[in-house]
Amino acid sequence: MNTSLSIHEVARRIQPHIHRTPVLTSTQIDRLAGASLFFKCENFQRMGAFKMRGATNAILQLSPQQQQKGVLTHSSGNFAQALSLAARNLGVPAYIVMPQNAPAVKKAAVKGYGGIITQCESTLAARQEMARNVQNQTGATFIHSSNDPQVIRGQGTAALELLEDHPELRAIVVPVGGGGLIGGTALATAEVAPECQVIGAEPFEVDDAYRSLQSGKIETNTTTDTIADGLKVELGTNNFPVIQRYVKDIIRVEEKEIVRAMRLIWERMKIVVEPSSAVALAAILREGEKFKGQKVGIIISGGNVDLENLPF
Amino acid sequence: MNTSLSIHEVARRIQPHIHRTPVLTSTQIDRLAGASLFFKCENFQRMGAFKMRGATNAILQLSPQQQQKGVLTHSSGNFAQALSLAARNLGVPAYIVMPQNAPAVKKAAVKGYGGIITQCESTLAARQEMARNVQNQTGATFIHSSNDPQVIRGQGTAALELLEDHPELRAIVVPVGGGGLIGGTALATAEVAPECQVIGAEPFEVDDAYRSLQSGKIETNTTTDTIADGLKVELGTNNFPVIQRYVKDIIRVEEKEIVRAMRLIWERMKIVVEPSSAVALAAILREGEKFKGQKVGIIISGGNVDLENLPF
Repeated sequence: MNTSLSIHEVARRIQPHIHRTPVLTSTQIDRLAGASLFFKCENFQRMGAFKMRGATNAILQLSPQQQQKGVLTHSSGNFAQALSLAARNLGVPAYIVMPQNAPAVKKAAVKGYGGIITQCESTLAARQEMARNVQNQTGATFIHSSNDPQVIRGQGTAALELLEDHPELRAIVVPVGGGGLIGGTALATAEVAPECQVIGAEPFEVDDAYRSLQSGKIETNTTTDTIADGLKVELGTNNFPVIQRYVKDIIRVEEKEIVRAMRLIWERMKIVVEPSSAVALAAILREGEKFKGQKVGIIISGGNVDLENLPF
Repeated sequence: MNTSLSIHEVARRIQPHIHRTPVLTSTQIDRLAGASLFFKCENFQRMGAFKMRGATNAILQLSPQQQQKGVLTHSSGNFAQALSLAARNLGVPAYIVMPQNAPAVKKAAVKGYGGIITQCESTLAARQEMARNVQNQTGATFIHSSNDPQVIRGQGTAALELLEDHPELRAIVVPVGGGGLIGGTALATAEVAPECQVIGAEPFEVDDAYRSLQSGKIETNTTTDTIADGLKVELGTNNFPVIQRYVKDIIRVEEKEIVRAMRLIWERMKIVVEPSSAVALAAILREGEKFKGQKVGIIISGGNVDLENLPF
């Protein structure tokens, strides 16, 4: 990946447009985990997820001419909201291709942030085709939710802030979906705290990243029946090499472990987190021996859930 | 009320045993309210509610002989947990009389904090009788959840911290149940920021405090069909005179307004709060004109909810 800015420069560039989120701890969860956990709360980020960071960074590096024509993405979830809000903040139009079956709460949020929605069938092929149509009509720049290099760099600023607050961390555990968050986390950590390990966490149901690391090529999922709906996306050509280089381990977890971890976070920490966010804690609880007695960071990826459709 | 310590001295005394909780804000909720709101997040307090403050303060002022025999209360909710945990922190036994129909999650939490539970029927008379029995057997000191003067003083430390962080507040809105939180808030505010108004918020379904202020005597509730289960308790002889003196206004809200406010807090702020906590925001949204353009504090009383029994 060719990215000329340091992670500190990326952070400075996006800083006026994002929140510096707090890092929370829980004595009770630490006791269960046998480790000291530091939760970087991107559920408190603007629009409720870390994706605000990458979206903002990607728009900021466009030329004024490009910005005027707008940005475009296809996303079933948080990135659609992130790109809409980031674009509105910067006075840029945002065109969002969303599958018809996306959660109502997410469609409403995209509209609330000023995104211009075009609906399509829920297959990846249908999304891509519709995105090309919109691009032809508008001249907007397509920004991929997890494989755009500037998106990946932007997502890494969450880890940078976490390491600034807690430079003593020995590992950071990150949920793996499309690879943008773990890719950005890996690059930022390699830059500012190379001795801190970056570890992925993934549902067994969508363990494409685990299998990709094993096989050395980008694998796809044959099942996607996971509650962690943010993690169904597959890796991309830009983030996979980063993951191969810097991520030594991906821990897979079962669905019931995800729900249990999510419930622990809600009940003990009193914060609303998405199932995808709970995957990282589930991984630590599953493989406790790996983290015993260590200081470990967790990136809580987001808090956008449909309250009428909870797994409890 | 005869309380010799200043609110700063109370705060210093309990400080090693409680968390200083954060104050959160929400641009989106501010826009809806037309005011700048500062949420004092006692849902992040130890055991999940402000009651930890009062319980700790009440135990700390007992003699060593009294502490050895233990403390006792009857409570259907948070105070039972608070007294149990505060007592355990201080090496003191805690005897808790709980109605059989208390939520399972609250009984389990009391046990988890080391409280010794005796169950009884859910009427106030049955609770009081059982508490007397336990007192006779153990010699424990009875501590009332909302009318004990040291409990009331301890609860006031949340407002003290809020005003230390935001001395510019023009009003603090507090849910009114048994009167301990609003009584303590009123005393603390009168002491450190006498120009800041303290305003109560109460469900129409249990508007005993509103009616008590009107009639000049402690009124009871004939209905208690509210989702805000922490607010069903009635005022006491120690906190009512404080409320009469310092609280000029109590705003009543409907059940659907409570659920809407609770949902706003969960969805927009990504924090888990009890229905009782949402009553204060509901009051501000209902009577927006009163707060227009002002800086207003809200005490989020707690976050202990049964996730299997949500109103969404």
